[in-house]
Amino acid sequence: MLHRTYDNQTCSVARALETVGERWTLLIVRDALLGIRRFEDFQRDLGIARNVLTDRLNRLVEMGVLERRAYSEKPLRHEYRLTDKGRDLFPVVHALATWGDAHDAPDGPPMLFTHRDCGGRLDDRRRCTRCGADVTVREAWAEPGPGRTLAA
Amino acid sequence: MLHRTYDNQTCSVARALETVGERWTLLIVRDALLGIRRFEDFQRDLGIARNVLTDRLNRLVEMGVLERRAYSEKPLRHEYRLTDKGRDLFPVVHALATWGDAHDAPDGPPMLFTHRDCGGRLDDRRRCTRCGADVTVREAWAEPGPGRTLAA
Repeated sequence: MLHRTYDNQTCSVARALETVGERWTLLIVRDALLGIRRFEDFQRDLGIARNVLTDRLNRLVEMGVLERRAYSEKPLRHEYRLTDKGRDLFPVVHALATWGDAHDAPDGPPMLFTHRDCGGRLDDRRRCTRCGADVTVREAWAEPGPGRTLAA
Repeated sequence: MLHRTYDNQTCSVARALETVGERWTLLIVRDALLGIRRFEDFQRDLGIARNVLTDRLNRLVEMGVLERRAYSEKPLRHEYRLTDKGRDLFPVVHALATWGDAHDAPDGPPMLFTHRDCGGRLDDRRRCTRCGADVTVREAWAEPGPGRTLAA
């Protein structure tokens, strides 16, 4: 009943949340945007149970957000790379980070998004505050911010 | 174990998802952005189980995203309004809608975001494509798009 009603909502927010409406999923996408590709690296970075990670990665592959590629033949090993559809989630991750920075980061932003070409910070519309460029995901850079602390 | 590890992630995305990392939560915020304020209206629009809705609304009040105000004394009735922190989620909802429109809206966007002052469409950075203004949540308007269909 719930599921049926939900599906009937013709809304791109609802549809998007069908794919990414679960916190691990967007954290996996965040990690992938930061260059993580291998199961063991996602697992170590997120501290997520292996079976949950397997499930979420499979679902992201199925939905076309990640693609799985073999990087070793013997033994057979795969890595996960963002598709164009996956990279297009950068504005969602950036918007979540901006909101978290504004409302739940007492020591300042843990991570700074910058424009790779000139080093300027990105504003909340992903524009470079130094040169004014509209920064795309491929031109964005993430660096540790003042609120970065090591995990206990 | 999972929870502890998760909490240790100093990351504004992770912190934001602690509050809104569940699809109903962001759909409630979307509805609130569209002007819905009352329990019965959220319930009807989302088709969500009442106990789940109660739980999510309470959590959003606790996290400072919504505030509960009495709108009737006898009988005592409350409505839920976005706080400034809640309204600041507009870029997240907009980014999710933009992604859903691009990748999962075969009939076109179900909802169009426009600039109230001039009627121009918003681009993916929430700028008016007609007059070029940076559009804030208070200046944005939502109207039915070509992909809008009625629920079955």
